[in-house]
Amino acid sequence: MSCLLPQGFRAAGLYCGIKRDTTKLDLSLVVSDRDAVAAGVYTQNLVFAAPVQLDRSRTPCGRIRAVVTNSGNANACTGERGLRDAETMARAAAEAVGATGDQALVMSTGIIGEFLPLEKITRGIQTAAAQLGDGESALIDAARGMLTTDTRHKLAGRTVSIAGQPIQITGMCKGAAMIGPRMGTMLGLILTDAQLTPAAAQQTLSAVVEDTFNCISIDGHMSTNDTVLLVANGARGPLLEGAQRQTFQAALHEVAAELAKAIPADGEGASHLVTIDVSGCLDRAAAHQIAKTVAESALVKCAIAGADPNWGRIVSAAGYAQVPFDPHKVDLFLNGHSLYQQGTPVPFDAGAVSKSIQSQRDTHIDLRFGEGSARVRFWSTDLTAEYVRLNADYHT
Amino acid sequence: MSCLLPQGFRAAGLYCGIKRDTTKLDLSLVVSDRDAVAAGVYTQNLVFAAPVQLDRSRTPCGRIRAVVTNSGNANACTGERGLRDAETMARAAAEAVGATGDQALVMSTGIIGEFLPLEKITRGIQTAAAQLGDGESALIDAARGMLTTDTRHKLAGRTVSIAGQPIQITGMCKGAAMIGPRMGTMLGLILTDAQLTPAAAQQTLSAVVEDTFNCISIDGHMSTNDTVLLVANGARGPLLEGAQRQTFQAALHEVAAELAKAIPADGEGASHLVTIDVSGCLDRAAAHQIAKTVAESALVKCAIAGADPNWGRIVSAAGYAQVPFDPHKVDLFLNGHSLYQQGTPVPFDAGAVSKSIQSQRDTHIDLRFGEGSARVRFWSTDLTAEYVRLNADYHT
Repeated sequence: MSCLLPQGFRAAGLYCGIKRDTTKLDLSLVVSDRDAVAAGVYTQNLVFAAPVQLDRSRTPCGRIRAVVTNSGNANACTGERGLRDAETMARAAAEAVGATGDQALVMSTGIIGEFLPLEKITRGIQTAAAQLGDGESALIDAARGMLTTDTRHKLAGRTVSIAGQPIQITGMCKGAAMIGPRMGTMLGLILTDAQLTPAAAQQTLSAVVEDTFNCISIDGHMSTNDTVLLVANGARGPLLEGAQRQTFQAALHEVAAELAKAIPADGEGASHLVTIDVSGCLDRAAAHQIAKTVAESALVKCAIAGADPNWGRIVSAAGYAQVPFDPHKVDLFLNGHSLYQQGTPVPFDAGAVSKSIQSQRDTHIDLRFGEGSARVRFWSTDLTAEYVRLNADYHT
Repeated sequence: MSCLLPQGFRAAGLYCGIKRDTTKLDLSLVVSDRDAVAAGVYTQNLVFAAPVQLDRSRTPCGRIRAVVTNSGNANACTGERGLRDAETMARAAAEAVGATGDQALVMSTGIIGEFLPLEKITRGIQTAAAQLGDGESALIDAARGMLTTDTRHKLAGRTVSIAGQPIQITGMCKGAAMIGPRMGTMLGLILTDAQLTPAAAQQTLSAVVEDTFNCISIDGHMSTNDTVLLVANGARGPLLEGAQRQTFQAALHEVAAELAKAIPADGEGASHLVTIDVSGCLDRAAAHQIAKTVAESALVKCAIAGADPNWGRIVSAAGYAQVPFDPHKVDLFLNGHSLYQQGTPVPFDAGAVSKSIQSQRDTHIDLRFGEGSARVRFWSTDLTAEYVRLNADYHT
């Protein structure tokens, strides 16, 4: 993993006073030294936050200079005033780095339904602009500035050689709950010095998100603020087309998959990262729907938390996914143990399977259908009493 | 509430050895002294249990004499052998009361993927047939025989006068988890001495279930075994048609609603019964979909468990229900307090709202849209650490 800022980017992260805990960071600023191409993929929640509305209207485009992110307040469900606040915040970031007002994008995450503390944020942006750096600690500070209940910052990077030049792709993300079917309260920002047209950046990002950030779920709750941005400033290499764009997309996929998986791996209160492989389906949408339904079953999640090989919960969750299949052609493997074959229980050593769940953080559910050849890989968490405790207590 | 067995029915419940806990009951037998009309509504899970397959093939019909139910084993995901076992169980019940083999219906609930202990069950059926009674304790024993993790038995009854005769409707049900969108692991059995044709019984039951048992959710997990049966033996009153059938249906609705609501009220580990009213929608399906999505959000459930008026979770859950609406025309009331109006936060006393959640078992979410006039009422639970503990531990 090479986690450096790509050529021509600088970053900063700091505490500006949104969160109560003054030891945490709550503001992050990333700047490109030249106009950059930016693409975005956003929540499909009808109730979307003001920063989502703003960024959606500004991407894809070819002239972004800054991305500013705050944590601790989502600026969601805040009506017209929320949209004006997001614009003010973006303008402050753009102007602080010498760009014009509409050359910045903005992301917010945190509590829903409260107005942004704009004075603290604009003051914070000015301080961050004065602290911008291109080293590792600046990058880590920027990654920390977007965290909420995450227990660690999430960075991933790849260097890929294209036309003899080292192209860097580096991403950061946050998210630990409200992680739902089509992205959760997750923010992702992927930076690259590659050269892409706005249309190519959008197309590449959309394709990659579909198999990465759209294949995770912690609690099935789709957030108002989900955003993944790709900012490509073209500081290195030729304009990517054809095979070169494929090489870039493969590396981008690796970065995005690593970031996406880091979210359930840090899921609130989770004691297991659950990888769900669904195969043998008629099409990808069917496989995705089944994987998501299994991933989000509270009973499946509780069974894994308790190291309980109660596989009937897995099969019955698949059965209510509203995807047609023949139950007599279903096979199920749990951590490599065959539990169910062609719709009939297989005698198995429950103690051994239970021990295999209990003794490691990774759990593998492998569900095979006899309908076709489509498959999907999905990542989720178990459900623990600690998750409930954390979320019964978040607001007040 | 008048919870008596309708005219011409007898019942028994006992422990036959399926459950480990010998102080619980695990078998229930209800018998009609004459051929009765029976209708059923079943799970929509593709992976449905053997007893569901059997009852589906036998209802609606006009010649049922017995309904036998076991708890502790769901006879689900048990392949061809499971179906033969369900037939054997039904035949044993029919023959024990002097009927022919196909005049019985069967229900099972409990662990998925294990074969029924048939010897214990058939011996239990014979003992139960010898103990049949028509008093209150026989009815309560029958209601207890179908319970799994329920903390109490669930009975509801109404007496309604039709053509000068007292028609009795008495129902029992079970369920405390795996309660999903289109019925959960719930079994319901409603008995009446009214006279209905098989078609009318089916039509009336289906209509009533739609607004009662299909409007509850505890964890969104649709079970393999969900069944609601209506058994009408015609011991009293005329053949119900027209206005008389309407009167009957209204009383049946009251019984079914009381039973349905009793399930989340006894939800595993739940500390709140949550009533969700969704109104102002374009059609009933839209209102139902939104209510169900809010009901099943783990974050909404945790907030209620923690008496936390974190209303953004409610509004954002509505937003991902995949039902189109204008977010600027949404109002939200929580326990009568206005929190969100026309898409904008309303200043409110968070302490007072929190106290109103904490101080009572009932929580009321009232979500109003500006799209139309359709509405639905839905019942759910909160999500507590105790639910997780119970379900991490159920199997092993």
